[in-house]
Amino acid sequence: MAWMPFWNCLKEIPNAMKKLNVAIVGATGVVGLEFIRVLEQRSFPLESIHLCASERSAGKNIKVNGQDVPVEETTEESFYNIDIALFSAGSEQSRRFSPIAARAGAVVIDNSAAFRMAKDVPLVVPEINPDDILEHKGIIANPNCSTIQMVVALNPLHQVNPIKRVIVSTYQSASGIGSGGIEEMNSQIKLLDDGKEVTPSIFPQQLGYNVFPHIDVFLDNAYSKEEQKMVDETKKILHAPDMAVSATCVRVPVPIGHSEAVWVEFANPMSCEETRNILSSAPGIQLEDDPASNLYPLPSRAAGTDDVFVGRIRRDVSCPNGVVFWVVADNLRKGAALNAVQIAETMIQRGWI
Amino acid sequence: MAWMPFWNCLKEIPNAMKKLNVAIVGATGVVGLEFIRVLEQRSFPLESIHLCASERSAGKNIKVNGQDVPVEETTEESFYNIDIALFSAGSEQSRRFSPIAARAGAVVIDNSAAFRMAKDVPLVVPEINPDDILEHKGIIANPNCSTIQMVVALNPLHQVNPIKRVIVSTYQSASGIGSGGIEEMNSQIKLLDDGKEVTPSIFPQQLGYNVFPHIDVFLDNAYSKEEQKMVDETKKILHAPDMAVSATCVRVPVPIGHSEAVWVEFANPMSCEETRNILSSAPGIQLEDDPASNLYPLPSRAAGTDDVFVGRIRRDVSCPNGVVFWVVADNLRKGAALNAVQIAETMIQRGWI
Repeated sequence: MAWMPFWNCLKEIPNAMKKLNVAIVGATGVVGLEFIRVLEQRSFPLESIHLCASERSAGKNIKVNGQDVPVEETTEESFYNIDIALFSAGSEQSRRFSPIAARAGAVVIDNSAAFRMAKDVPLVVPEINPDDILEHKGIIANPNCSTIQMVVALNPLHQVNPIKRVIVSTYQSASGIGSGGIEEMNSQIKLLDDGKEVTPSIFPQQLGYNVFPHIDVFLDNAYSKEEQKMVDETKKILHAPDMAVSATCVRVPVPIGHSEAVWVEFANPMSCEETRNILSSAPGIQLEDDPASNLYPLPSRAAGTDDVFVGRIRRDVSCPNGVVFWVVADNLRKGAALNAVQIAETMIQRGWI
Repeated sequence: MAWMPFWNCLKEIPNAMKKLNVAIVGATGVVGLEFIRVLEQRSFPLESIHLCASERSAGKNIKVNGQDVPVEETTEESFYNIDIALFSAGSEQSRRFSPIAARAGAVVIDNSAAFRMAKDVPLVVPEINPDDILEHKGIIANPNCSTIQMVVALNPLHQVNPIKRVIVSTYQSASGIGSGGIEEMNSQIKLLDDGKEVTPSIFPQQLGYNVFPHIDVFLDNAYSKEEQKMVDETKKILHAPDMAVSATCVRVPVPIGHSEAVWVEFANPMSCEETRNILSSAPGIQLEDDPASNLYPLPSRAAGTDDVFVGRIRRDVSCPNGVVFWVVADNLRKGAALNAVQIAETMIQRGWI
């Protein structure tokens, strides 16, 4: 597929002389389709694009930049002459095919949890730790959705005033579970509206008109794996092994957009004004913080956008050096596809690929 | 209206020889109707019941124990010969009529925020501070819904191991705003399903398929009044002026049932086992804490029930003496009507009325 040059490409990627051969693994999934939208919208310099998915989806066509691209089954041969392979097909597929893709010479940017905590795999949010990319050995991990939006807000503050402790409770949308999540929520709502009973399938509980504190599996320490990811990944991305983090992760009946209530304890006193000043000039962040005008971040407004929205900034009345805020982002974009594409863009811009 | 004696009344109220004349102010509201249901279900010893509401609702009939009871407009004459007046008609009506009712000899149990923090008004959760009732001067305040369910869980722990700090984020249901909240949420969901736009009316934001961190008005310290209520009322009910409390209160698209993620820091080490042991024998609490079997509290299951459900109990990995859990209750019952009726029952049982 020929890449269509757009003028604004120059704005996004200053040194975009090199065009890349990109594969998307899990192309028919909810994040896979978002990969395609993000690549199109950002005029990513595509030399070619290869769409890979399960056998079940093979043979479909998906439009990319106006042209039909066939979906092929992911096989060991899928990665010949691929520069970048964007993976979002679940941990099992990542474990199986990422090493093959890397050996074939592709740089894998993997959205699954398979390699995030592996020592030789950088876990990257480009606004925070782009230089970690240099340590990759073929695989770069994209962090968990709920972690990304939180660390984008934490990092600029942490650079000014070291963070000692973070407490976060999440309000995570149906799309976070992948394909089928929104459909299951919607069909449950229709059934419940008709007075019928629902039987959860993808989710562990009824999500329509309900919330539940259960995302991913439960671990021996009684945290969910999603909660543990927020703890471990935050420390790894921020290079802060001693930062104390605790999370409660909850699914809410929202289609797209994760929200988070965050308590931060700093090493030194931190005013709301300084917090606002730092965040207002930080990359990837948009302040929405005027409660008097009913302005604060909302998933209904964040869905489909690229920024991490921060608001409800206030002193923690329970802690001298504490600040509380509310963070919202599109979990499919900054929480997944966008961050992965930004990793690829960073590599292009810095001449690392 | 004659009161129908039920045998199980004896179980609920051992010394229930005295039958009371009860008035409900705000009888047609969502909590008002729940007052009636709770009085019926608990076979409250009614000598008579008087249903008061706004002029708009006067003339309607509401069934109480199978008999039609007319709704009358609340006036200064509504409280003649009334023993207990259950108020849930908003702060303005409480400020106007509670003192009149008290002067007429009634004990007011007020569900509004009007008098909760007043020095001479006890703020009571019967499982916790029943003796505070004795200090009333005609008005007893019923705490805020989100506060009640949290303190029911905190108090038995606090009695064993003093609590230093509480952090809570809430997932509050549509019914918490009173009449019309569920209808507005439902109608928004239908409009959004049809691809139409919604204009919030009762709520400050779209609630269908959305969440927002805005309950009650915002205060000068950038907390919402709902969040400040959780701080102030918790300290007053637990007689713990030095307890540090911070809250983020969020509305979620659930009809009935508030959920809360709670972090508790104790003065001394506290194991999960001890936490579970204490809570499992505490009044008003039901443990639902077996994540391996997908068992944890859910608003969909708590709605219509009387207990405060606690689960997801785990060590706070961010704090040596910390424990984290998840609390759910029916905000209309234990969070409002049931707690108020339990205050009245306590007064009967102890011969205080």
